[in-house]
Amino acid sequence: MRNILVDYMARFSDAPIKELEEIAEKVLVETYEQGTVLLHQGDVPDRCYFVLKGCIRQYTLDEEGRETTSQFYTEEQSITIFTDHSVDKTSRYTLSCVEDCVLVVGDLTTGSDELTEMHPALEAMTRKMMEANIAGATDHFANFVAQKPEDRYKTLLENRPDLLERVPQHQLASYLGITPESLSRIKKRLHTSDGDA
Amino acid sequence: MRNILVDYMARFSDAPIKELEEIAEKVLVETYEQGTVLLHQGDVPDRCYFVLKGCIRQYTLDEEGRETTSQFYTEEQSITIFTDHSVDKTSRYTLSCVEDCVLVVGDLTTGSDELTEMHPALEAMTRKMMEANIAGATDHFANFVAQKPEDRYKTLLENRPDLLERVPQHQLASYLGITPESLSRIKKRLHTSDGDA
Repeated sequence: MRNILVDYMARFSDAPIKELEEIAEKVLVETYEQGTVLLHQGDVPDRCYFVLKGCIRQYTLDEEGRETTSQFYTEEQSITIFTDHSVDKTSRYTLSCVEDCVLVVGDLTTGSDELTEMHPALEAMTRKMMEANIAGATDHFANFVAQKPEDRYKTLLENRPDLLERVPQHQLASYLGITPESLSRIKKRLHTSDGDA
Repeated sequence: MRNILVDYMARFSDAPIKELEEIAEKVLVETYEQGTVLLHQGDVPDRCYFVLKGCIRQYTLDEEGRETTSQFYTEEQSITIFTDHSVDKTSRYTLSCVEDCVLVVGDLTTGSDELTEMHPALEAMTRKMMEANIAGATDHFANFVAQKPEDRYKTLLENRPDLLERVPQHQLASYLGITPESLSRIKKRLHTSDGDA
């Protein structure tokens, strides 16, 4: 399963595969049961993750008790909740395992750790990974703003069809910025027009 | 005006103010007229910016000719269009000056430049700035998903009231994910209830 990590690292580094395999052997891999909370809203994040297997939901509970899902992380995605250290170090999000998960776990509290000292290539690699994450998040947001709910659903169907089977419908609706009822209507409408075609 | 930059850097670095002032003296500062396009959608970004004065709009033109504004950058904000280098290096966004602008200009093509070699504190500082940017963008997105258009407008009124005066209303509507007509209705409704209160 660590091969997934090697492939992912190779996308962001010119280091020899042999070195990437060495790194992959050394990282901490943990398993978590469905329902495990990796980070609580209001706590200071001290770990980052990379998903080898499973699905993690990122959500916020507002003052009126409403829950908004802002992200689902699945295989080959990295998870770091960044906070603006100059303002407030606590997380506005909860991270919860929607499925049983196998994750690479990194420590955010050590600036430059032993592994990075042994493999200087990690520095540039993690920076590039971070940039790719920003790019992905920026594009996801721009799409969300530009698209009507039905088009958001179609984009999801195209880019992450597995999510439709993996997460509860009310969480998926929240992620699409609509009510569960609207999501049902959209699915029915698209399904019906599929039948007509 | 470079003091703005020194204050900003001090939020992300423990380096002595004297060193930050030295850095601020050395960076490239350029002025741009209103209407200048800093980056065209489809081009590969080669510069990053920090706003000392002015307002820059980030937008996307889709295949059907619809324009979506996904960000406005104003004083004390940094601008970097990150692209996922392992997929596609071109920008999905255009950056255009809504006002005359005074910007710090950085070069993205040099990995580690002369300035960073002279001031190693810059490495950790820019990383922290990047993290704060991600945190800001993540929160902005989560708010956008969670809020109804009227609440998005109220949040804007609270956090960035200057934008209401500085940018055309149809661009502001796009940024809020609504039509210009909806924005007018929201403003009218809130204004009327203010009068009642």
